[in-house]
Amino acid sequence: MRLAVLTSGGDCPGLNAVIRAVVRTASNEFGDTVVGYEDGWVGLLEDRRRDLYDDAGIDRILLRGGTILGTGRLHPDKFKAGLEQIKANMREAGVDALVAIGGEGTLKGAKWLNDNGIPVVGVPKTIDNDVNATDYTFGFDTAVSVATDAIDRLHTTAESHNRILIVEVMGRHVGWIALHAGMAGGAHYTVIPEEPFDIAEITKAMERRFQMGEKYGIICVAEGALPKEGTMEFEAGGVDQFGHQTFNGIGQVIGDEINKRTGYDVRTTVLGHIQRGGTPTAYDRVLATRYGVHAARAAHNGDAGMCVALRGEDIDLVPLEEAVGTLKTVPNARYRNAQALFG
Amino acid sequence: MRLAVLTSGGDCPGLNAVIRAVVRTASNEFGDTVVGYEDGWVGLLEDRRRDLYDDAGIDRILLRGGTILGTGRLHPDKFKAGLEQIKANMREAGVDALVAIGGEGTLKGAKWLNDNGIPVVGVPKTIDNDVNATDYTFGFDTAVSVATDAIDRLHTTAESHNRILIVEVMGRHVGWIALHAGMAGGAHYTVIPEEPFDIAEITKAMERRFQMGEKYGIICVAEGALPKEGTMEFEAGGVDQFGHQTFNGIGQVIGDEINKRTGYDVRTTVLGHIQRGGTPTAYDRVLATRYGVHAARAAHNGDAGMCVALRGEDIDLVPLEEAVGTLKTVPNARYRNAQALFG
Amino acid sequence: MRLAVLTSGGDCPGLNAVIRAVVRTASNEFGDTVVGYEDGWVGLLEDRRRDLYDDAGIDRILLRGGTILGTGRLHPDKFKAGLEQIKANMREAGVDALVAIGGEGTLKGAKWLNDNGIPVVGVPKTIDNDVNATDYTFGFDTAVSVATDAIDRLHTTAESHNRILIVEVMGRHVGWIALHAGMAGGAHYTVIPEEPFDIAEITKAMERRFQMGEKYGIICVAEGALPKEGTMEFEAGGVDQFGHQTFNGIGQVIGDEINKRTGYDVRTTVLGHIQRGGTPTAYDRVLATRYGVHAARAAHNGDAGMCVALRGEDIDLVPLEEAVGTLKTVPNARYRNAQALFG
Amino acid sequence: MRLAVLTSGGDCPGLNAVIRAVVRTASNEFGDTVVGYEDGWVGLLEDRRRDLYDDAGIDRILLRGGTILGTGRLHPDKFKAGLEQIKANMREAGVDALVAIGGEGTLKGAKWLNDNGIPVVGVPKTIDNDVNATDYTFGFDTAVSVATDAIDRLHTTAESHNRILIVEVMGRHVGWIALHAGMAGGAHYTVIPEEPFDIAEITKAMERRFQMGEKYGIICVAEGALPKEGTMEFEAGGVDQFGHQTFNGIGQVIGDEINKRTGYDVRTTVLGHIQRGGTPTAYDRVLATRYGVHAARAAHNGDAGMCVALRGEDIDLVPLEEAVGTLKTVPNARYRNAQALFG
Repeated sequence: MRLAVLTSGGDCPGLNAVIRAVVRTASNEFGDTVVGYEDGWVGLLEDRRRDLYDDAGIDRILLRGGTILGTGRLHPDKFKAGLEQIKANMREAGVDALVAIGGEGTLKGAKWLNDNGIPVVGVPKTIDNDVNATDYTFGFDTAVSVATDAIDRLHTTAESHNRILIVEVMGRHVGWIALHAGMAGGAHYTVIPEEPFDIAEITKAMERRFQMGEKYGIICVAEGALPKEGTMEFEAGGVDQFGHQTFNGIGQVIGDEINKRTGYDVRTTVLGHIQRGGTPTAYDRVLATRYGVHAARAAHNGDAGMCVALRGEDIDLVPLEEAVGTLKTVPNARYRNAQALFG
Repeated sequence: MRLAVLTSGGDCPGLNAVIRAVVRTASNEFGDTVVGYEDGWVGLLEDRRRDLYDDAGIDRILLRGGTILGTGRLHPDKFKAGLEQIKANMREAGVDALVAIGGEGTLKGAKWLNDNGIPVVGVPKTIDNDVNATDYTFGFDTAVSVATDAIDRLHTTAESHNRILIVEVMGRHVGWIALHAGMAGGAHYTVIPEEPFDIAEITKAMERRFQMGEKYGIICVAEGALPKEGTMEFEAGGVDQFGHQTFNGIGQVIGDEINKRTGYDVRTTVLGHIQRGGTPTAYDRVLATRYGVHAARAAHNGDAGMCVALRGEDIDLVPLEEAVGTLKTVPNARYRNAQALFG
Repeated sequence: MRLAVLTSGGDCPGLNAVIRAVVRTASNEFGDTVVGYEDGWVGLLEDRRRDLYDDAGIDRILLRGGTILGTGRLHPDKFKAGLEQIKANMREAGVDALVAIGGEGTLKGAKWLNDNGIPVVGVPKTIDNDVNATDYTFGFDTAVSVATDAIDRLHTTAESHNRILIVEVMGRHVGWIALHAGMAGGAHYTVIPEEPFDIAEITKAMERRFQMGEKYGIICVAEGALPKEGTMEFEAGGVDQFGHQTFNGIGQVIGDEINKRTGYDVRTTVLGHIQRGGTPTAYDRVLATRYGVHAARAAHNGDAGMCVALRGEDIDLVPLEEAVGTLKTVPNARYRNAQALFG
Repeated sequence: MRLAVLTSGGDCPGLNAVIRAVVRTASNEFGDTVVGYEDGWVGLLEDRRRDLYDDAGIDRILLRGGTILGTGRLHPDKFKAGLEQIKANMREAGVDALVAIGGEGTLKGAKWLNDNGIPVVGVPKTIDNDVNATDYTFGFDTAVSVATDAIDRLHTTAESHNRILIVEVMGRHVGWIALHAGMAGGAHYTVIPEEPFDIAEITKAMERRFQMGEKYGIICVAEGALPKEGTMEFEAGGVDQFGHQTFNGIGQVIGDEINKRTGYDVRTTVLGHIQRGGTPTAYDRVLATRYGVHAARAAHNGDAGMCVALRGEDIDLVPLEEAVGTLKTVPNARYRNAQALFG
């Protein structure tokens, strides 16, 4: 048989580990060959592809961040209009089944292709950990580790200068990275999109620290954090694809407000792209590799329309529709657990 | 209320994160005070304890490996003979419930105390990830990360010198660390105690690599690995507490045999104690902290005789008897998945 | 004898390693006691101090970023007006000599105190590596390492998305951090304050990369970078203490301009405070420890008015006036060496 | 012009950074081409070579440990007997000058070739930092960092179990790695080959710690450490190339003796090959890159018979004979400085 693999959407540490595991499993277990399409759906439509061999080259990408296949975005209309072209390309290349690695949008596309006659197996990918079907997604642990390292470093500089340091981490719609990095880094307050914040409460928590003699504070803020309605005025940013109000630099907004209310020296650091690049953690390499092994088997075995997913200790196959539709948000109970450590 | 906490058995990154979370949760959520017993059961019996305050000191131990309370071992007979003394000590100290953090032996002790009238909540701790009740134990991810970093470093030096490098990792009875580190590090063969190895097969895998032009190899070996009966002669080490034959330096034994059979330059590195010390990974800090939050709540709420456990994304309470008795070994299917990446 | 130690100015990884080495050397070699003044000159003037013992506590600060003594700023006028108070305080505390750890401003103050009858030994401290008297200052290697790790991570995400990523690092007046991090991280262009940049040249270097098929780029920019006069218009920021024009967010300014001129997708990351916090690298711990050993000896031996300095492989004592006055900037030849690796 | 480059002797993080800098500088500054010989002198003699292009591939090796060219050993007699063959090979390949990267043996070979009419520029390479001509060699900082990380991890596990942990690091003839890692890691005793140890003194230092209440200890031992004559009996290992008595596993020997004399629980970890593999530190990447830039220029400019060397902040050219002959050992004064921190 001949399998194809592609990566689509934002990059994420572990993509190459999946690609490697697909190629090696296909070759070692079944003697199948594998072709890689470049730049996601775009390359599939434009028939840009290359053969991926089970050799030393593929073996070494395990440690490498990003994706050797590149990634890209394609408008759904163009995507759907290209169905026959895609079918023709795959027929021409002799591809029997496709492994599509991507986030919610990609998995929707994978489902649509599968519904329209192209056998596809999905591999969920989101640094934000917001895919419903799986306990965890690869890339998330690496992002949390990078953010936690940063918070570790901020503690001592904040303390030496009696400062409040705000670290803004990724998470436009869900707060998983902020929740875990804040907990791992021992932040004194963590703000996530799921729980609109009350600036008065954050300020009070910081004041309590200073009164108790701990004259510094670390606040971990998800980029999608928002104030409780009516509690705070500030300049609006825009409206995102989900119709939500957004604010550029919510970390800075919170910092300025705390400074205004307390006079404390407050500084903000926006971690940005370093959270999504670089060598994956051991955890993410194992998870991504296991996904790849199971995806290759599913593709070979004709389990089309399915998506690999971590459930407890096992990798299961779940229908693609389970993986799309709603974002997995931080449950209120999880946030309350974190609050036990605030202050 | 007044809670007590102790750590027992081998140390493990994340113990202090649990202690911190117990103290902070007890204080923040319930206004409870916490006392720490030193050196595990020994300190409980000898009434060596100190008050643990919800202050800056306790907050900073989150990052620190080891355990600020120390750990120790107590013979079960002495432990049982000391029941009344322990009860008297706890009464004297005004302790209402105990949180015991430890491995299988410790949890057995915890169950016995609980059966004999002392309310105990267990927190599973094993760097080897071999506790049945929980998906993962803290410390394991850190050990895997340290071993994976080591394997990453070994690749380039092995390749530059056309060598086979064997890395012996922890795991006397179970192969979880070797399985995950071998997978994350891209080892070309991994040997675990659950699957007796055939030296001829390992040798063949290495020879195949050299024939294909990749003139080096990395083999990840759990310290408890054993050859298939009758496949290989070597000097016996001794018999362990479970009555199994053991071999000191199985990594070296495998290396010597490969060298003898092939003439390749083979070197062995035994990672040793660096796997169990130092700052926990972000993953372990989150898991340990969540355990601590839930253990403090269980102790406060009278959920005695229970043990905290990770189940998928949730922390559950399970009866202590579920956590003891049998070791969680690597299922054969998991090992077969890893094999897809060998060679 | 009795020595005193204080830290002043911005914090820097390695300050605690110096403090520890001063205390341990004073105790081990001479049986001297050591007192620490809090918050730099402020604590010296206000007589806020604590005894530093050669015990387990002091031994453990080796790894810790920041400074256990705190740091602060004092206006030179207040400082000078306080001379008699400072003398009285030191006499009262029985202090024979002072070790002052700080940057250019601190060393100036140390020289003035010494000229006015208080024996002071200086330890140069600047994360920016801009002190003339010494080859390297501690904290610099840690800052370069943090920035290099960040650049390593940015490569793969930039490449996966065909983006130009700009990383703005510390260095308001000198470009040492940018020069070293850019070289270590394999940046495709590096911009430093000492060499005003030509935006057309940077843009051309990026275009050349895209034409050659490498469709991404990393540009490392010191925060104090400035355009060649007349080459680029942009909004002014302000005027710094040296009378130089400054620009907030020069990284963003460069990014916007490249995007405007080429249409490439350009993103900017400002590393900020993570560069100056956290555990020092092994290099910085060794350098800081050696400084501390030699400073304690100099203070004990009456070598007042001197400053410790790294010269090749040795720690020398140089007059404090050599360490102040002019900043050590990046020589043009060093920048030209880096240019060999651009593009 | 056409330059050649080769790597010889033990591998070392930073070799690839030198190769990359040679290729990029040759191309960018002079338009020269570069050929790489494989496996050191062996490939030069056997004419195994490949063209190294200034492209994306060469750019990415900066981070990679080991050497893409491979390394090997050739007996001096064969080497010398091959002179005419080497000349013919280089003439055939159109090579004008050779950059030889290696340790003392390699630089001797380089000098001999140069004396016999082949223009060679040397780049000193030794993880042990024992080359006389230069302040520091690349690879050394990475080895010290790896060893320091290990010692950091050992502290907490030793402390939790009231153990003495011995970490044996590289350094058969010189103690630079042990000295720096011991100082950076806060070891309580460090043993180097240059200063024969007195086991009674080490034991006393550990006993003092236990008496003071610090019930653990870390001892950093260079693999080439030796006892003072007549102070300790133990089984001999062999005789090395310098005629010195050697002992396999001196760390273990010291540990066993301390245990015998004190009854303390003592464990030994031998770090081994992880010290010489993997991604170089930022420091080593900068140093290796600067060496490469200067070596390419020297080769192009006809500065044959010279070797690049770090002198303070500068890269100088020194005659090859300065770099060979005697090992750079740890001066007694440097060891005495470290002793101020023992115990």
